[in-house]
Amino acid sequence: MDDFPRILAALGTEISTPAPIVLIDVVEENITRMQAFADAHGKAVRPHVKTHKSVRIGKMQLDAGAIGLTAGTLSEAEIFAAAGCPDILLAYPLWITGAKEGRLRRLSRATRLSVGAESAAAIERLAEVMGDAADALGIVIEVDCGARRSGVRPEDAGVLAAHATRLGLRARGVFTYPGHGGTIGARESAAADQAAALRTAVESLRAHGIEPEIVSAGSTPTAEFSTDPVITEVRPGEYVFNDWDNVRLGDSAPQNIALFLASTVVSDQGHPHVILDAGTKALAREGNPERGYGQVPSFDGYLRVLNEYHGFLELPAGGPRPVVGETVAVVPHHVCPVVNSFEELIITDRTGALLDRWPVDAQGRLN
Amino acid sequence: MDDFPRILAALGTEISTPAPIVLIDVVEENITRMQAFADAHGKAVRPHVKTHKSVRIGKMQLDAGAIGLTAGTLSEAEIFAAAGCPDILLAYPLWITGAKEGRLRRLSRATRLSVGAESAAAIERLAEVMGDAADALGIVIEVDCGARRSGVRPEDAGVLAAHATRLGLRARGVFTYPGHGGTIGARESAAADQAAALRTAVESLRAHGIEPEIVSAGSTPTAEFSTDPVITEVRPGEYVFNDWDNVRLGDSAPQNIALFLASTVVSDQGHPHVILDAGTKALAREGNPERGYGQVPSFDGYLRVLNEYHGFLELPAGGPRPVVGETVAVVPHHVCPVVNSFEELIITDRTGALLDRWPVDAQGRLN
Repeated sequence: MDDFPRILAALGTEISTPAPIVLIDVVEENITRMQAFADAHGKAVRPHVKTHKSVRIGKMQLDAGAIGLTAGTLSEAEIFAAAGCPDILLAYPLWITGAKEGRLRRLSRATRLSVGAESAAAIERLAEVMGDAADALGIVIEVDCGARRSGVRPEDAGVLAAHATRLGLRARGVFTYPGHGGTIGARESAAADQAAALRTAVESLRAHGIEPEIVSAGSTPTAEFSTDPVITEVRPGEYVFNDWDNVRLGDSAPQNIALFLASTVVSDQGHPHVILDAGTKALAREGNPERGYGQVPSFDGYLRVLNEYHGFLELPAGGPRPVVGETVAVVPHHVCPVVNSFEELIITDRTGALLDRWPVDAQGRLN
Repeated sequence: MDDFPRILAALGTEISTPAPIVLIDVVEENITRMQAFADAHGKAVRPHVKTHKSVRIGKMQLDAGAIGLTAGTLSEAEIFAAAGCPDILLAYPLWITGAKEGRLRRLSRATRLSVGAESAAAIERLAEVMGDAADALGIVIEVDCGARRSGVRPEDAGVLAAHATRLGLRARGVFTYPGHGGTIGARESAAADQAAALRTAVESLRAHGIEPEIVSAGSTPTAEFSTDPVITEVRPGEYVFNDWDNVRLGDSAPQNIALFLASTVVSDQGHPHVILDAGTKALAREGNPERGYGQVPSFDGYLRVLNEYHGFLELPAGGPRPVVGETVAVVPHHVCPVVNSFEELIITDRTGALLDRWPVDAQGRLN
């Protein structure tokens, strides 16, 4: 983060704010580090594309050794399949109707596709939609490990996998998401819950005569604790960019933050805050009123309030104050929805050399 | 809102969820009602396009009698100017650098353009950028009326307007935004603050020999109280669609809500909540943990937690419970960022006849 002011100075007026600035050398290091960690523990990496939504960055992950990619929506998966990704896990409890029917069938021909499922009804729907081509679709049963989001009880995974097999689908394994590891001090225990759930789920599959190929664990905050022998792969997303939450949680160092939002001070009326041109539509209101909605480390300030196009940058009394027209670096609390707010990423490096502009290929693409 | 389940039933599997559904007959009524109210009080309407970002809906507003449109970013203004809008107020304290320089000059030739300004530095920058064509750019001085966002003290408007005039720009008037009217019970008093601020600002301009053409007031929540004689125009945005916040504030009736998000139940694991396929990226985390991030009126439920692609729909104990695969209508707390999340609007009416799909022309377009 110490580099951000120097990078902004080097970029000068080449950029239109607000704009997401990506330090591609830091991205490369983050990808290398995660892959090396997983290699050392005998795990595969299947990065979640929700964070970057960029075909180019997905290719960097695959080139570094990722076995495939994870997507959250049919549209995301379509973008990465069209770009040549050979293996995609759509880690979501899909419900297929309408236009999604033809799209799922086409996608299953374009890549080696596996999708999440956690109810008999959804599995029956998937089988019905796939028809004669059911064996082209991999099913990965989602189990809950404590996030209480989607996912069946681990001991119920086998009966669903067997149901999928009976309907002609290919039951490939199980996955879970330890979302309850997203608070301070909870990463290690959530990872332990995850390992326990996955072990039970694997036993449940085996009791139904199914040997899983995929035993898949989330997430960036829990990745370093996801080393249980039962796990075959990890699905981190945020690690490519990292954000203020990752630093706060302790799974990332400040120097591993690879994306910030360049934002201009557009108003200073002498209040304890100045106004930036980054509001809800850019920063997605991630954070909360106490912690704020984005950090501005070089002024020790934070965005206390967001309107749609305005951010209230609260400044400590007596500290330095940016002037109107000055560009500042905002570190998002949660980077994923911020990237999704923009059509393109400004690609630079620690020196601030403007290298390129890359499209956010899967921007939006929510359904 | 009583119509929403029937509309969803009529749309059937024609839509891919999550998707924003627009009741265009309700939009038409909302536009007609606002225009009639303003006409009756001798005010012009200059709707803010931030809410719909749709060229077609902007044309509906102009056809109904709006004198022009309001934009929040250069990119938004470019989209509506290219579509033929003859008069645009960019109601934002613009700071122009880099690529924005050429864009501002081009935009000032494409439409009758006025922009917000509230500092001497920004006015000097605008004059410098416009060069010989400075008189093609209208300047509208922003004054603060209590939101403590951008805008000078009303008594300081005249000196800035005179500064703009001296630099060759056309000082056209003043505007303000009564953002402090966005809490329950505060609409009327915020509108009174607004009128007082605008009266002072107009006196300040006159003291500098400038007679304002534009004396511009926000917003949907305060529009019905913005009838002070000094005001020449109102800039409501949300009124075209309305949302849960507008109903809560009392500036809209439930039957005037013209947009909801169609969302599918993808998981039910017997918790007090079921999981919908609408998360942060669709609903933009507007609301708060107490009120939730979206209402589901037909089940008397609300989205208690959002992840990126998952919404936790909290249901009252003992009430009806949607089944996995069922589509439900989510009413956003704040509609503007939700529209901005999608590439297209599904256009229907109270009967649920699928009429059309319209692009969200200015989706993103943040800089």
